[in-house]
Amino acid sequence: MSPTAEKTDVAIIGAGPVGLFAVFECGMLKMRCHVLDALDAPGGQLTALYPEKPIYDIPGYPRIDAAALVEKLVAQAAPFHPIYRLGQQVTSLAPTADGGFSLATSSGTAIEARAVMIAAGVGAFGPNRPPLQGIEAYEGSAVRYLVTRREEFRGKRVVIAGGGDSAVDWTLSLGEVAGKVMVVHRRDKFRCAPESAARLKAMADAGRVEMVVPYQLDALEGDGTRLSAVMVKSLDGAVRRLEADFLLPFFGLAMTLGPIAGWGLNLERNHIAVDPSTCATSTPGIHAVGDIATYPRKLKLILTGFAEAAQAAHAIYPRVHPGEALHFEYSTSKGVPAA
Amino acid sequence: MSPTAEKTDVAIIGAGPVGLFAVFECGMLKMRCHVLDALDAPGGQLTALYPEKPIYDIPGYPRIDAAALVEKLVAQAAPFHPIYRLGQQVTSLAPTADGGFSLATSSGTAIEARAVMIAAGVGAFGPNRPPLQGIEAYEGSAVRYLVTRREEFRGKRVVIAGGGDSAVDWTLSLGEVAGKVMVVHRRDKFRCAPESAARLKAMADAGRVEMVVPYQLDALEGDGTRLSAVMVKSLDGAVRRLEADFLLPFFGLAMTLGPIAGWGLNLERNHIAVDPSTCATSTPGIHAVGDIATYPRKLKLILTGFAEAAQAAHAIYPRVHPGEALHFEYSTSKGVPAA
Repeated sequence: MSPTAEKTDVAIIGAGPVGLFAVFECGMLKMRCHVLDALDAPGGQLTALYPEKPIYDIPGYPRIDAAALVEKLVAQAAPFHPIYRLGQQVTSLAPTADGGFSLATSSGTAIEARAVMIAAGVGAFGPNRPPLQGIEAYEGSAVRYLVTRREEFRGKRVVIAGGGDSAVDWTLSLGEVAGKVMVVHRRDKFRCAPESAARLKAMADAGRVEMVVPYQLDALEGDGTRLSAVMVKSLDGAVRRLEADFLLPFFGLAMTLGPIAGWGLNLERNHIAVDPSTCATSTPGIHAVGDIATYPRKLKLILTGFAEAAQAAHAIYPRVHPGEALHFEYSTSKGVPAA
Repeated sequence: MSPTAEKTDVAIIGAGPVGLFAVFECGMLKMRCHVLDALDAPGGQLTALYPEKPIYDIPGYPRIDAAALVEKLVAQAAPFHPIYRLGQQVTSLAPTADGGFSLATSSGTAIEARAVMIAAGVGAFGPNRPPLQGIEAYEGSAVRYLVTRREEFRGKRVVIAGGGDSAVDWTLSLGEVAGKVMVVHRRDKFRCAPESAARLKAMADAGRVEMVVPYQLDALEGDGTRLSAVMVKSLDGAVRRLEADFLLPFFGLAMTLGPIAGWGLNLERNHIAVDPSTCATSTPGIHAVGDIATYPRKLKLILTGFAEAAQAAHAIYPRVHPGEALHFEYSTSKGVPAA
């Protein structure tokens, strides 16, 4: 136990909609919460990815914009005075000798909690990186996972890698402005809309795009700042050197659990396996709710996460208040602290 | 199959909050619904029992009055054009030869559905009746389970039976107006607030109430219209005849499933046992959601019922649209018909 650690009943990892509602459910059961999130505002994806998008399937809201829902959930949690520690990732989680947990964040915050509720949503989405030595040095400059300004590529030599819609669509688009576009794919067939495939073939036939198939990325050549060439290799070992200013790998996005993957929890394909009746993970005292939690027939709906938060809070109660009977009361009878 | 029956995909029994939200969830999966309820307005208990009470635990609503929530849920269901058949109890439910179900209501409505979702809440609440032969004949006249006008009892001889707060409170109240009040209880101790017990004793000591303890109700004496006496018996068989105009039994309220109890479903203490991942009952094609459905660690929360409605709708989908893949889409991407 660290004397400087902040003490709480339940550490909620993730300040998305489900994490916020978990504060309310814990509060109704007299459990204080810390809420931790890598983002610097509450709301998770709703705030970060689609604040202005309407949501139609929140019960009781025929339509509500994502940001407005977050605002409501923050207000609903407020009477229970959660302590928010935002803009910091939880980097470690470990059991303590007294049956609780100690958490540390990327900002150096230390927290001790009786129980943990992981509501980390989809975790962090990131592009799948090709396994090329030294690629980090070029990321954001010569190596790009997304295109923000097409004009940057005017007159340049561009290697596009991948066989899906993104690779094909950007080839068609940059083919109009780049000096040279080379498409590297390990098969000669692309998984894209038939019309796009036809346009790609026409562009290749016209010599405006070079098809480098079936090849795979093999290495990068450059001085660590400027790229000079992309080395590719065929399945039978033939090597080609493609002189290039840019490499654009389009191998899709993947969810990454980040540090959570190292906490010894039972995982299933990047999700945390839980018992749906308690949302308990394989480690007693650690529960997972919302999109990150999985079990048979799980629906990834916000409203499902809300119900899971209630199940988890009730399951956690005896750990925070051992020996105290839980008197189930309806909110209509009991009210909330500020009411 | 009846040629005159109304056809639908899903018959939802119960127009409470969970039944209403089930319309939305079914609608998002392209399933049409009929909604049936014995009450003549949607909302279930929220409308019938506490329309003006605030609810605090609907996610995204820091506080909402019950009636307002019902209004929102009706609006959220509206784009899917549910057909409401209200003010009629579903009296029968039976499988049809083609794998569906036929339902009949107390008003004679006949419905054929591919699947059934029972969202009947707590069912019907009713008083526990003492097992006295011929009691039905006096119910509503000489036998009353609740008091609406105290003045009716002025100067009358009243037997009150029971040992809880209701029995004691009404004894204290009617003791002031009735000609004679006799309290029948099988023990000499009452389960009531200490202050009430003290007041009851004082009233008995003053001769204004007769304590008939420890006795139990045994029989009614009368002409089938007017009551003349209530016969009571002690545990050792002693019998007393209490001349009376009224009998008021206060043995608590109990939930009654009503006709649902006769549909061959697996029941557990007046609830329907379901698999929580699908809300499937023991009869394939019949699902139960909300307060009437039970499983280990079930929380009787409205928000839990909302999530169950989503699970049930997804589980019902292949029965209504056999062979069609269910493409899971978020409401933000897909919208709703009216949007």
